[in-house]
Amino acid sequence: MLVVMRQSATPEEIRGVVAAIEARGFKAHPIPGVQRTAIGITGNRGAVDAPVFESLPGVLEVIPVTHAYKLVSREVKAENSVVHIGAVPVGGPGLVIAAGPCAVESHDQMLTVARRVKQAGAHILRGGAFKPRTSPYSFQGLGEEGLKILAAAREETGLPVVTEALDVEGVDLIERYADCIQIGARNMQNFSLLKRAGRAKKPVLLKRGLAATLEEFLMSAEYILSEGNYEVVLCERGVRTFSDFSRNTLDLAVVPAVKSVSHLPILVDPSHGTGRRDKVSPLSRAAVAVGADGLIVEVHHDPNTALSDGPQSITPEMFDELVSELRQIAPVIGRSL
Amino acid sequence: MLVVMRQSATPEEIRGVVAAIEARGFKAHPIPGVQRTAIGITGNRGAVDAPVFESLPGVLEVIPVTHAYKLVSREVKAENSVVHIGAVPVGGPGLVIAAGPCAVESHDQMLTVARRVKQAGAHILRGGAFKPRTSPYSFQGLGEEGLKILAAAREETGLPVVTEALDVEGVDLIERYADCIQIGARNMQNFSLLKRAGRAKKPVLLKRGLAATLEEFLMSAEYILSEGNYEVVLCERGVRTFSDFSRNTLDLAVVPAVKSVSHLPILVDPSHGTGRRDKVSPLSRAAVAVGADGLIVEVHHDPNTALSDGPQSITPEMFDELVSELRQIAPVIGRSL
Amino acid sequence: MLVVMRQSATPEEIRGVVAAIEARGFKAHPIPGVQRTAIGITGNRGAVDAPVFESLPGVLEVIPVTHAYKLVSREVKAENSVVHIGAVPVGGPGLVIAAGPCAVESHDQMLTVARRVKQAGAHILRGGAFKPRTSPYSFQGLGEEGLKILAAAREETGLPVVTEALDVEGVDLIERYADCIQIGARNMQNFSLLKRAGRAKKPVLLKRGLAATLEEFLMSAEYILSEGNYEVVLCERGVRTFSDFSRNTLDLAVVPAVKSVSHLPILVDPSHGTGRRDKVSPLSRAAVAVGADGLIVEVHHDPNTALSDGPQSITPEMFDELVSELRQIAPVIGRSL
Amino acid sequence: MLVVMRQSATPEEIRGVVAAIEARGFKAHPIPGVQRTAIGITGNRGAVDAPVFESLPGVLEVIPVTHAYKLVSREVKAENSVVHIGAVPVGGPGLVIAAGPCAVESHDQMLTVARRVKQAGAHILRGGAFKPRTSPYSFQGLGEEGLKILAAAREETGLPVVTEALDVEGVDLIERYADCIQIGARNMQNFSLLKRAGRAKKPVLLKRGLAATLEEFLMSAEYILSEGNYEVVLCERGVRTFSDFSRNTLDLAVVPAVKSVSHLPILVDPSHGTGRRDKVSPLSRAAVAVGADGLIVEVHHDPNTALSDGPQSITPEMFDELVSELRQIAPVIGRSL
Repeated sequence: MLVVMRQSATPEEIRGVVAAIEARGFKAHPIPGVQRTAIGITGNRGAVDAPVFESLPGVLEVIPVTHAYKLVSREVKAENSVVHIGAVPVGGPGLVIAAGPCAVESHDQMLTVARRVKQAGAHILRGGAFKPRTSPYSFQGLGEEGLKILAAAREETGLPVVTEALDVEGVDLIERYADCIQIGARNMQNFSLLKRAGRAKKPVLLKRGLAATLEEFLMSAEYILSEGNYEVVLCERGVRTFSDFSRNTLDLAVVPAVKSVSHLPILVDPSHGTGRRDKVSPLSRAAVAVGADGLIVEVHHDPNTALSDGPQSITPEMFDELVSELRQIAPVIGRSL
Repeated sequence: MLVVMRQSATPEEIRGVVAAIEARGFKAHPIPGVQRTAIGITGNRGAVDAPVFESLPGVLEVIPVTHAYKLVSREVKAENSVVHIGAVPVGGPGLVIAAGPCAVESHDQMLTVARRVKQAGAHILRGGAFKPRTSPYSFQGLGEEGLKILAAAREETGLPVVTEALDVEGVDLIERYADCIQIGARNMQNFSLLKRAGRAKKPVLLKRGLAATLEEFLMSAEYILSEGNYEVVLCERGVRTFSDFSRNTLDLAVVPAVKSVSHLPILVDPSHGTGRRDKVSPLSRAAVAVGADGLIVEVHHDPNTALSDGPQSITPEMFDELVSELRQIAPVIGRSL
Repeated sequence: MLVVMRQSATPEEIRGVVAAIEARGFKAHPIPGVQRTAIGITGNRGAVDAPVFESLPGVLEVIPVTHAYKLVSREVKAENSVVHIGAVPVGGPGLVIAAGPCAVESHDQMLTVARRVKQAGAHILRGGAFKPRTSPYSFQGLGEEGLKILAAAREETGLPVVTEALDVEGVDLIERYADCIQIGARNMQNFSLLKRAGRAKKPVLLKRGLAATLEEFLMSAEYILSEGNYEVVLCERGVRTFSDFSRNTLDLAVVPAVKSVSHLPILVDPSHGTGRRDKVSPLSRAAVAVGADGLIVEVHHDPNTALSDGPQSITPEMFDELVSELRQIAPVIGRSL
Repeated sequence: MLVVMRQSATPEEIRGVVAAIEARGFKAHPIPGVQRTAIGITGNRGAVDAPVFESLPGVLEVIPVTHAYKLVSREVKAENSVVHIGAVPVGGPGLVIAAGPCAVESHDQMLTVARRVKQAGAHILRGGAFKPRTSPYSFQGLGEEGLKILAAAREETGLPVVTEALDVEGVDLIERYADCIQIGARNMQNFSLLKRAGRAKKPVLLKRGLAATLEEFLMSAEYILSEGNYEVVLCERGVRTFSDFSRNTLDLAVVPAVKSVSHLPILVDPSHGTGRRDKVSPLSRAAVAVGADGLIVEVHHDPNTALSDGPQSITPEMFDELVSELRQIAPVIGRSL
């Protein structure tokens, strides 16, 4: 941390801040400048100290320096982590595509989509059994019945399954039926859920919250790792802005930003990230071009009858064409698909 | 809903949309304009229909008209709701102030603050036993021990207690020990928690999420009411913006906006809303002047040693002065304190 | 500035950064920490040095410390500035209310409104002769004719006039006809216009841009002061967020934030800040309660026929009641009206 | 427009709104629903009518339907526009890359960079002679001298020149010396400047403002077209959000959004869009993959000594590699480079 003093700060005020720093067991490093003095603090071991110094006399502001995340940091682990969802490696040289409907609606629907996305080249199957819906009156998912359908789809296609948990009970069930526990954007800071996921025996796909900074996103991953589960895949799915033309603003710059400071793999969800079918393919291409480790994309064989998020689901035909485009872009950045 | 057709839409395309509307059991109302045709949809009973019409040929865009919330709506209940926290009415003519430390740290700390805020005129005691913290390495609260301390403070001061639940187990405990269950900003769309709170026998204080629209905020309240618990108090605590001078941007215009469309009472949290001690009193005055039903404010007798959020806690002396100011502002808007 | 090194930074890399700092004539202050080294920089005299150090080997990030504004800073001038618009002091103990229609539409309209707001207690008359409109097809204002009408209204009522300049020619004209040059939100970083305003002989009302940080807002004021015109009044008018219920989000916390770091007075514009008539009075009360030096508010005697921004204009009757409320709130914070 | 009535609206209130609509010469189309009545308005010819109906008795809200832009709309002109900057077609099958330093610093610097980017495959030369700087104390550009240097660089390399105008005088000069007039993000709603650019004899590169919606962005282009200059190229350069890791948030979804509703070409500026050298190439690849018509990118032969925006400039070597990557991505989406 760095404490910046006011220009008008007196020598006593500066000494007071130094004393307050040392009283907490830290080391103070005054830096007298032409206009003002700043005081560096070391020895606080990267901890999340509250900026208690801000209210001391003569202090202009306190600037945090150290990041609070550790286990997710590339400084702790320099090489990329590769997380296995079922037998599929995420974060290695091969790009990974998870595809499937927004919600599991029926055995027929799920199997139809699963066969199609498998045939088109998807590596992982997605589909929601527990649906977080803005309205209590919207379809809330089939629950355990949906998980059984997903397991049946895996049985037939061989595709491992990722599906969302809304609470601790959901994690229990998903651990049993599926291959990867998704934590959705709305639960990115549901710390009880993060801790439970940190004790799960399955990998976790953690989506970025709608208003989450990179720091907060990584701290939520840190919750999971700090409980012992190192198998975490991050996922960018759009942030909330003033946009008048897309449901969210897909923040692709977060991909190189994550790669720069963390060893964890990161996928992009262009379906929720845009909310509009006609933008899914362009943003998918962009996500691969920017360096993401893969995509999670909604595909439905009949989007206009989908029980949730139909307007952002692409058709199997659009998915075929998208995979073909991605196969051409992947090698440009040294990846394969 | 209103379906707006492209200028170039053919009569067949218009008939196609009408057919699609009627196929879903709704009624279509074509409005031929000079430049283009729009088609109103009725009979969808305020439901949250996915904009499946957006992808039909000839459609330019689909505009939602009806709001999805019902029970929270002033159209359903015209008069203001008054929610009782303990014996304290929230939403009536009297303004309500909940005060106390961010976190329960010890019996002594809690009792010291409780006596002081009671003496200064607070009506409700706040204090966190379960703390949602960005970092897993930060103080996470005393848990049930903290709830017991809060109960002891209520015993002595007579002030009812509001405290945050992070999960379903937390609701169980808080129902037993406290008078009002707080759902924090990060859990505003934790739908499992909302449903549990909707079955609780205690009132709920629901904080607005950092990126929540008014529609989403009210829908989260709707989750609670739809489970049978009508005792809900809303709370504005700042939204996330690009601000470089406050932790969040306190959105006071949401107060008259809520009052206009909902019968639920709404408090303002100027402590989290600004994150800076020196802004708490000014924004508290503003919150009362804008028409909030009260405040929830962090007070600590020794903020610089607080285990969490010290920099945004005001001192008992600042709280005394604030209450005195609010007493003068309240009558201007026909309220008392 | 503070250069934070990676944990893995070698002694040579640290020496390299120190050398680079010294090569630019600054002084380097290495602070060796337990985990990493940070290097303070002094001697850069508050200048806006580009963070060129960010790309040196071993550097994790560069954190700016010093603010670039000087003349507007309270560190340069501790006491509040009082700016005179006509004979009306802004920033002194008395609150100031500027009121009038969004646009000057005709001699009759302007005089009607001017008489009414004068009678209700306004101190300054507002009204646009040059209108910045999102659409080229909207009413663009009466131009010089409008300025003549404003001058006539001042003649009759004695109220000084503030009106917006869209360009350098507008400043020339407004200098001649009016008492205060308004720079609108969309032009907050129109640096040519700011420089011209800095050479004007009339005070300037500078509105905050829709996405302006406090730093940028003050730097735009600094442009005006640096050209020699110290008569600057700031104005908060709402920032752009994801809000679904108001046109902009009025950011009242900026008022105490400005007061803390700058000596300039600041008004609040609740009309543009909310965009909705029914929210103007509540937010006006809040603005005074938070500590603003006054308001600039749109009043129209027949808002539903107004040529621009009718929906956010209040009626003279609403204005009467608002002034009466503000008169009661002002003394609570040691001001008068 | 669609006027939505309250559930409680009486038949008289509905008749009142219909009368008000007809009084303005429009046509009212009442749509009686199960819960409430909505009233469609036609005949307002796409005009920007103020929502004056919002304050009529019984009205819940007014929803705009028609967009205010015309000339830029794909409904008016279905095929893509191709704009020529010098002899370079923008918006055709070939992707276009404009490259060069942020600011013209000297004849040597400009010529050095110009030769290098020409050699690497750039089609257009960029470089600022008039620099919009947040601080009045930062380097403001060489002015007309800089334009002469740009003209000399064009002379030698044959690359047409795009450079920014900050005011009307700047447009006069740039018309004389350069090939394309850039209007920067901060001036996107400087309507006087837009009008002048609309009368210029050179094409205009219009950058999106930091908080501009798609509607506003297109309306600003409409200002230029409505004055007679149809040669407009749009440019996305990042919007302002809460991001803690990039200077702006590059909103790539705007590219397919623009393509869907407008015939104008659109470039992407990954340099300002991220503000960080290490993110320029990834986001450039993404911009091409998403379907942009080209890029405008900052290249400097010695970024660490650049007088402005050095940290976001890439080196000629990075530019070489980027162009090589883009050449491979272009054909995937049916473009060439």
